[in-house]
Amino acid sequence: MSHQKATNITWHHGHVDRAARESLLRQRGCTIWFTGLPSSGKSTLAFTLEHWLVERGHLSYVLDGDNIRHGLNKNLGFSPDDRVENIRRIGEVAKLFADAGVITCTSFISPYRADRDQARQVHEAAGLPFIEVFVKASVEVCETRDPKGLYRKAKAGEIKEFTGVSAPYEEPLRPELVIDTGELSVDAGVQVVIEELRRRSFIGA
Amino acid sequence: MSHQKATNITWHHGHVDRAARESLLRQRGCTIWFTGLPSSGKSTLAFTLEHWLVERGHLSYVLDGDNIRHGLNKNLGFSPDDRVENIRRIGEVAKLFADAGVITCTSFISPYRADRDQARQVHEAAGLPFIEVFVKASVEVCETRDPKGLYRKAKAGEIKEFTGVSAPYEEPLRPELVIDTGELSVDAGVQVVIEELRRRSFIGA
Repeated sequence: MSHQKATNITWHHGHVDRAARESLLRQRGCTIWFTGLPSSGKSTLAFTLEHWLVERGHLSYVLDGDNIRHGLNKNLGFSPDDRVENIRRIGEVAKLFADAGVITCTSFISPYRADRDQARQVHEAAGLPFIEVFVKASVEVCETRDPKGLYRKAKAGEIKEFTGVSAPYEEPLRPELVIDTGELSVDAGVQVVIEELRRRSFIGA
Repeated sequence: MSHQKATNITWHHGHVDRAARESLLRQRGCTIWFTGLPSSGKSTLAFTLEHWLVERGHLSYVLDGDNIRHGLNKNLGFSPDDRVENIRRIGEVAKLFADAGVITCTSFISPYRADRDQARQVHEAAGLPFIEVFVKASVEVCETRDPKGLYRKAKAGEIKEFTGVSAPYEEPLRPELVIDTGELSVDAGVQVVIEELRRRSFIGA
């Protein structure tokens, strides 16, 4: 065959194991699951963390509403069933990214414990680390950071079932990390996650 | 804050662009979409390619029935609608992986042109390369490689709607690559893809 030029290649068949990709990337694949009220600071933390990691040679990727709701989950609405399915799919995709060796950040309100616990479960069943980060901020603090005025509209009844106003947010009971964004700066909050990644040797010191 | 130890860090906010991840990985993120009859050799090619790439320092990941059907798509069956949705979700997930900089391989029969074209379209709309690889083999050749005897069962009517026997396979009209696995060895077939990745500078020479 004209395509078979090299004859001194050792060809390996079958699956590449996770350790080989992690060795290549010099990091451990994992999912960092940011959860909290609207405008609590989840995306700001996730993207600042991603920047910090990539600048230091670590592969990180953020799954958020922008890249999920307009793509994979564009056929889901906001019914109770669709909200469950939304988080289920995100958990499964995060698991695949973590399996690929990527330090995967997810930034979704994900207000229900059962949904977050399911995402945790699919990771743990696959032997993949799941770091739940509760991005803690009071409704009063979140309101001050709300550029689209969503809290105001929700309180005026113009938006129905708005988490924190007219729909519940179930705080994590045993999150790996809590970042109180009413107390900590963005950079200090990101540092909390970095320290956890180092402590568990998912990245080097 | 006790967590803010380093004070000489420059913190960057906002999204990391694709080029930064690709520079880190020294490769271009893309999707290599293997399509063909059952037992045509898709998974063998995909996993051999993944091995070749990872051994040379390139991050690659295979999406296939094993990691998709039991996870992300476990709530889908084999109705016409579910088959469309199956491939739609795979296309969207592959797009996210490619966006993360990963050389992403998908290994699914994906018998319908419209479904594959939709996967192509979501990639191209995002500026991401999509390499459709037609894994070509006659039913007669595939039958000889069928460890589970599925072709035999399909011909006996024990399996309904089996692609190539009792359900259609629409051959790609303009695939980027054709690998005739009745003619080429696995390794020679993988080499065809590697040459394409090099030719387009998705990996180094």
